[in-house]
Amino acid sequence: MNSLHQQSLIVDGLNASNFFKRSVLERVHQGGVTAVNATIAAWDHTHETILRLCQALHVLEHNADLVMPVRSVKDIHQAKAANRVGMIFGFQGAEPVEDKLELLLLYRQLGVRIIQLTYNFQNHVGYGCQEKEDRGLTPFGREVVKEMNRLGLLIDLSHCGARTTLEGIEASQTPVAITHANSLSRCPHPRNKSDETLKLLAERGGVVGAVSVPPFLSCSTRATLDNYLDMIEYLIDLMGIDHVGVGPDFMEEMSPESSAGALKGLSPEILAQYAAVEPVQGFESARNFPNLTEGLVKRGYKSDEVQKVMGGNWVRLYGQIWQN
Amino acid sequence: MNSLHQQSLIVDGLNASNFFKRSVLERVHQGGVTAVNATIAAWDHTHETILRLCQALHVLEHNADLVMPVRSVKDIHQAKAANRVGMIFGFQGAEPVEDKLELLLLYRQLGVRIIQLTYNFQNHVGYGCQEKEDRGLTPFGREVVKEMNRLGLLIDLSHCGARTTLEGIEASQTPVAITHANSLSRCPHPRNKSDETLKLLAERGGVVGAVSVPPFLSCSTRATLDNYLDMIEYLIDLMGIDHVGVGPDFMEEMSPESSAGALKGLSPEILAQYAAVEPVQGFESARNFPNLTEGLVKRGYKSDEVQKVMGGNWVRLYGQIWQN
Repeated sequence: MNSLHQQSLIVDGLNASNFFKRSVLERVHQGGVTAVNATIAAWDHTHETILRLCQALHVLEHNADLVMPVRSVKDIHQAKAANRVGMIFGFQGAEPVEDKLELLLLYRQLGVRIIQLTYNFQNHVGYGCQEKEDRGLTPFGREVVKEMNRLGLLIDLSHCGARTTLEGIEASQTPVAITHANSLSRCPHPRNKSDETLKLLAERGGVVGAVSVPPFLSCSTRATLDNYLDMIEYLIDLMGIDHVGVGPDFMEEMSPESSAGALKGLSPEILAQYAAVEPVQGFESARNFPNLTEGLVKRGYKSDEVQKVMGGNWVRLYGQIWQN
Repeated sequence: MNSLHQQSLIVDGLNASNFFKRSVLERVHQGGVTAVNATIAAWDHTHETILRLCQALHVLEHNADLVMPVRSVKDIHQAKAANRVGMIFGFQGAEPVEDKLELLLLYRQLGVRIIQLTYNFQNHVGYGCQEKEDRGLTPFGREVVKEMNRLGLLIDLSHCGARTTLEGIEASQTPVAITHANSLSRCPHPRNKSDETLKLLAERGGVVGAVSVPPFLSCSTRATLDNYLDMIEYLIDLMGIDHVGVGPDFMEEMSPESSAGALKGLSPEILAQYAAVEPVQGFESARNFPNLTEGLVKRGYKSDEVQKVMGGNWVRLYGQIWQN
């Protein structure tokens, strides 16, 4: 592992792998990751979410040699010092909140720190990027944004539709995240965001995590580390060095139920494309995070710039939001 | 308020009032209570329990001038210093755990520190005192005891049947509580415990909280502060000054749903008796806690003895159990 990688805070901005498997934790650890936004629930309603959080708490307890909970930026620094992976509990949808705003406080208490407002389709909060239409944040969605602001929970707009994304950025009183999406102008896919949206995100102090999933990266079933670095460079040029991080969206060892949930409602064409996706060459797994640091260095970025993209920007944003 | 009461840690060992009402918090505060084992759930299953815990977290947040959370004995001392009531989240039944042992860790994370193994009837863990028969702890019940020991959660056996109570005391590796029950020999009622059981509880380091509900105190619908003091004296003589606390079981401003739940399954005779119960003369409400301190002083107990009964014994037991 190169020494810059070893010295730096490395943040995996979005990882949807099955964190209930130790082998997944091991790979993230091998990748030198300091903190990971681990997807614990998404489209799950309250009861299922509680059981998943429960499992996640047990994962932390039974794998304390490898992982530790992250509830604050201080915990990220402690994880680094302890050579353990800091797990941030994240949701990839607001379904766990159902129609009860007050659940946000309970989830915060259980360690949740990042919540994506919608997954692919309509929910009680807004519209996902695969929905037939996008009418933006619902009235309840605006309440969710307000309460997340109040509680210091980071808003994630990655899977949201174009209008919901824009309204989310605008409605929030504090900077927000797009933890895993790319530029629509470089790869036209509903999961990506327009350059205007990305620029607005940056202007408001937010961070985007470049995603390495081939259909959103190379608009095909195959991609390479170089494609990923190209996208990161494009985003840096567009948004500035302080507003780009990484959010690969690894989906390692997902359970059949989680996979089915993730793909639910998608068209046969999309499903066929996803089924044919191959691992990104040179960035197949969370184990390969060092390749990304090395790639950025090779492209001429200075150490402090590499550190921002590999984790520093996420840590800064987390610190701003979670302090509440 | 007398100065001994004001100086002491006063612990209300079991209070089933509606803590979602500020007027209830105010009365507990007026009573000079330092910490209260507040019943948040009982016969409720997971989903309902989560919503109740959620409400309880909001109560803490919105009434921070009056109350604060207690997760450790340190918090109790802080509550005293801050002149606020420390709220300990308690369950009066293991139903919230359903058949999922792993939920205990999650409830702990949410602040729950005391769980009664059964309410009045059979559940997945054991048998309540109003059940037709009592076959003791179930195999799952033994697992619950073990996991509560491991997690440092205080086991409460108040409503359990005679055999389940005995087996609970014996199965636990650490001292347990009977937060609200009296001596069966002084008042024969299924909710009370035999002197042998109470002595075993004390031998194992546990604490009983004397209950002030008339049917369990005077075996009638009326009782006085003097009856309550008599029962406390009897328990002290039986078990020793280190093993008796108070657990009045106030049920102020309960919602109709909670009242209905609390009474569910009881015989028409019992229901008729409960419906006719009058407030205990001289100890009508949590506001009247100072009368109890005064009564003990009048009966000749020394200051340190009064302090043990009024809170010290609970605090010692909590400290032993919660430290894990």
